[in-house]
Amino acid sequence: MITPILLGGGSGTRLWPVSRRSYPKQFAPLFEGLSLFQATAHRFDAPGFAAPVVVTAEPFRFVAQMQLQACDIPPAALVVEPAPRNTAAAALAGALILAPETLPKGAAPITWAAPGQATIWEAPVQDVTMQDVTRQDAALQNMGAGFAEAPVGRFPFLPPGTAPSANGCGADPLLLLTPCDHAIPDPEGFRAAVLRAVPAARAGRIVTFGIRPDGPETGYGWLDLGDPRGGTGLRDLRGFVEKPSAEHAARMLEAGNSLWNAGVFLARLSTLRAAFRTHAPRVAATVEAAMADARPDMAFLRPDAAAWDHVPDISIDHAVMEKAGNLSVAPYDDAWSDLGSWEAIWQEMPQDNAGNALQGAATAIDCSDTLLRSEAEGIRVVGIGLEDMIAVAMPDAVLVAPRARSQEVGRAVTALRAHGARQADAFPRDHRPWGWFETLALGDRFQVKRLHVAPGAALSLQSHVHRAEHWVVVQGTARVTLDDDIRLLGENQSIYIPLGARHRLENPGLIPMILIEVQTGSYLQEDDITRYEDIYARS
Amino acid sequence: MITPILLGGGSGTRLWPVSRRSYPKQFAPLFEGLSLFQATAHRFDAPGFAAPVVVTAEPFRFVAQMQLQACDIPPAALVVEPAPRNTAAAALAGALILAPETLPKGAAPITWAAPGQATIWEAPVQDVTMQDVTRQDAALQNMGAGFAEAPVGRFPFLPPGTAPSANGCGADPLLLLTPCDHAIPDPEGFRAAVLRAVPAARAGRIVTFGIRPDGPETGYGWLDLGDPRGGTGLRDLRGFVEKPSAEHAARMLEAGNSLWNAGVFLARLSTLRAAFRTHAPRVAATVEAAMADARPDMAFLRPDAAAWDHVPDISIDHAVMEKAGNLSVAPYDDAWSDLGSWEAIWQEMPQDNAGNALQGAATAIDCSDTLLRSEAEGIRVVGIGLEDMIAVAMPDAVLVAPRARSQEVGRAVTALRAHGARQADAFPRDHRPWGWFETLALGDRFQVKRLHVAPGAALSLQSHVHRAEHWVVVQGTARVTLDDDIRLLGENQSIYIPLGARHRLENPGLIPMILIEVQTGSYLQEDDITRYEDIYARS
Repeated sequence: MITPILLGGGSGTRLWPVSRRSYPKQFAPLFEGLSLFQATAHRFDAPGFAAPVVVTAEPFRFVAQMQLQACDIPPAALVVEPAPRNTAAAALAGALILAPETLPKGAAPITWAAPGQATIWEAPVQDVTMQDVTRQDAALQNMGAGFAEAPVGRFPFLPPGTAPSANGCGADPLLLLTPCDHAIPDPEGFRAAVLRAVPAARAGRIVTFGIRPDGPETGYGWLDLGDPRGGTGLRDLRGFVEKPSAEHAARMLEAGNSLWNAGVFLARLSTLRAAFRTHAPRVAATVEAAMADARPDMAFLRPDAAAWDHVPDISIDHAVMEKAGNLSVAPYDDAWSDLGSWEAIWQEMPQDNAGNALQGAATAIDCSDTLLRSEAEGIRVVGIGLEDMIAVAMPDAVLVAPRARSQEVGRAVTALRAHGARQADAFPRDHRPWGWFETLALGDRFQVKRLHVAPGAALSLQSHVHRAEHWVVVQGTARVTLDDDIRLLGENQSIYIPLGARHRLENPGLIPMILIEVQTGSYLQEDDITRYEDIYARS
Repeated sequence: MITPILLGGGSGTRLWPVSRRSYPKQFAPLFEGLSLFQATAHRFDAPGFAAPVVVTAEPFRFVAQMQLQACDIPPAALVVEPAPRNTAAAALAGALILAPETLPKGAAPITWAAPGQATIWEAPVQDVTMQDVTRQDAALQNMGAGFAEAPVGRFPFLPPGTAPSANGCGADPLLLLTPCDHAIPDPEGFRAAVLRAVPAARAGRIVTFGIRPDGPETGYGWLDLGDPRGGTGLRDLRGFVEKPSAEHAARMLEAGNSLWNAGVFLARLSTLRAAFRTHAPRVAATVEAAMADARPDMAFLRPDAAAWDHVPDISIDHAVMEKAGNLSVAPYDDAWSDLGSWEAIWQEMPQDNAGNALQGAATAIDCSDTLLRSEAEGIRVVGIGLEDMIAVAMPDAVLVAPRARSQEVGRAVTALRAHGARQADAFPRDHRPWGWFETLALGDRFQVKRLHVAPGAALSLQSHVHRAEHWVVVQGTARVTLDDDIRLLGENQSIYIPLGARHRLENPGLIPMILIEVQTGSYLQEDDITRYEDIYARS
């Protein structure tokens, strides 16, 4: 059994405006269907692989949880980085989940669900504060009949009372560290490559996966191959070449003895820990300390923030892999892309005869080798006479650039941040633990929002000092608490929430509930909120 | 006194997506501030000029009216073309307003308000149907206290009881035919040029205005100059050169004896009618017949549709001007643009040092000679590394093209029409006689709209078979009729309109009323409406 460690905490800007700090690339629907994060989880949801450990960042912890829930893949654990510290820290934090002695102090031993089931973190009673109890009580009270089976925020996939069972990974399990924002169109082929590498990993090697290059790419890391190792198809690694010059890349391509580094690593837990302790002792010490004091928080495990503060910000390649002497390379010959730019997205998308790749409501007139994307149903993108261009339209932002400049998209984000433009980092849909909302209209003294509340989810019990709200349910059923009153509202029913009233919105149903909220008042910011109870521990 | 005839019925697509069939270029806010139509009206709202006659098309008659109202310029008449028939028919229809013998049969003689005041069309009693009376009653009843002074839809600018007075134009007035979609940055200079041409027009010439060319433009009509005429600065016209070859244009530019045709003509009514009768007898006969049977309709005058059916579709240049022998050219040396393409808009806009013209939330990174326009507050347009490009973003459509291809924007509209895409012709804001609405969100069984209702305006008394509506007032005051009940709603008040209920929405206030409407039902199209009464004669 191999445990995938999904490194899903990055927040790149090279695919702006689709990828933003608050909702990065791995969660965005870049192609039809699944997000890259979901595709990654699916890739290893197969025989031979245990439930994944997910390492992600605070702003998208609920997005990660909901996307896994949507494709029915319960994680073994969801680790929330207290702050971004690059891949070395994330990888080790994820790996340590499988090391019992690094458990939260005083917590019950980690027990594993069978493949396809989830683990529940059991915080010992003495660590639970009164506030925790209140939160949990509130959460359970708010579930209602027909809901007891899906406590929101505590691994809703696993019915309470289910006995966690051992996962058969053994004391020194195999780990597969993987980014979550790459495209691998043939998951079965990639799994087979991973499984072929198992004997080497069992024997104490760190196996990295090498992609057959199809061009002198200067933006990637390259793996310089050494001797073959037995009859395994693996090669020893002679060295890393990070972002080579064009000339060097061309030489490597011609020599045929180098592969692109996919950033996926297979190793035993003990091998990995030893490599960290030897080559990155400060990362090892600080991450181990942060994990030893990790705190369960609903469905998440939070490494200790104070200890995490001292974790060096460094990639796993620089910190460990470039220094370790026990790396092997498993070649992978099929298609792969790091989707690191709109250029790469254009390459991965289906193209017409003129080389145009269109997504959504896009019309290309006399264009060639051009990417046109409409990221919202109501937006029509039209290109006339474009060559080698990209145009990406979202409801709040449009990007236009030559394809050859797609590596410079990060400059747009920097410029927008300098302007204080919200589009730099904020996504038009604001994802929350209970679902998401978006602003439909914003006036001087009013705001209209669409709220999308997941089945079983509940917003906090709250009140506002500056605004009143009108709610109209347009899909599903809402349970509304208004001061001492609780009522159910169906489609086409509405309620008025006066300024100052304590209120809570829940979806007690089995389908998403959609609500239109019309706010009126002189101050309409999100921070006008007093939370009394919150099942997501935000009060 | 010169009466401007504003030819505001065109609906070009060369500035798509800002200009669309339902809301064309002349009404769009292309630059900060006024629309081109408003700028044209303002240009001739000055001493020496009478109230303008406006000729426009059915779909934007209310837009024209409201835009004039917004800049406080009461028109002498608003003529609504029953169908588009190009500029010859529109110009003559507008001119005939000033010819008493072409008045609606049996109508009281047209009387003119003093400059700055409006005319009221007086339909004789015997021509008024019961339906008209009901409409008018409904309109008056709906005005309420404090409102009697502004009857909506009947030249609201002119207080009832004001006696129309003669405008001093005399029996054979001077007319200035002018397009409404050109840019003339120096209105005072242009007025002076017009006034300098008055003696020639009085003497029976048709004076056209010639722009000093600044390039070998092939898309324009050119005026080939003949002899000077006295000491007036005017030249006789030797001939028109319509859309010359590049070579011919270059020759004309070098010779310095040709000007661009601005499409603005000054002539006596009698001169113009004679020219039509001589050179375009079919246009003259059919338009005169249509105007003789014209019907007043609220604030508008509608030429007879059956007669109008026979009007030839031809431009005034082809029909009359190219054939008439009595044309003089008044040179105009200052800036002018027909704004016929995004290229022309780019030229007219302020540019940064790199030649970039930005409007709205637009960011140019390492761009040159590029037009970036965001046409909505919430949309951020970012260009990276663009050269000689245009990008225009609206909430529902984005156009990207090289500047050199801007003449081909019409192809986009054709392609979108072929796809049945609503963005081809429909504007995101749907302008109605009472104001406008826009769809904020559209789901399977719900729709959210923002309605903007002008002071004193009223929607029809109506009901729906398939939908219920929730209304929340977010600005101003609404008077709501719901079956037998009438009530006032202020900001932050709401009402529910059940399926099938008769209802009407009015703004009895002095500021615009904004209402959020949430519709629910299985069919949400505009045609699910039964109108019982409508002050705009749409029932």
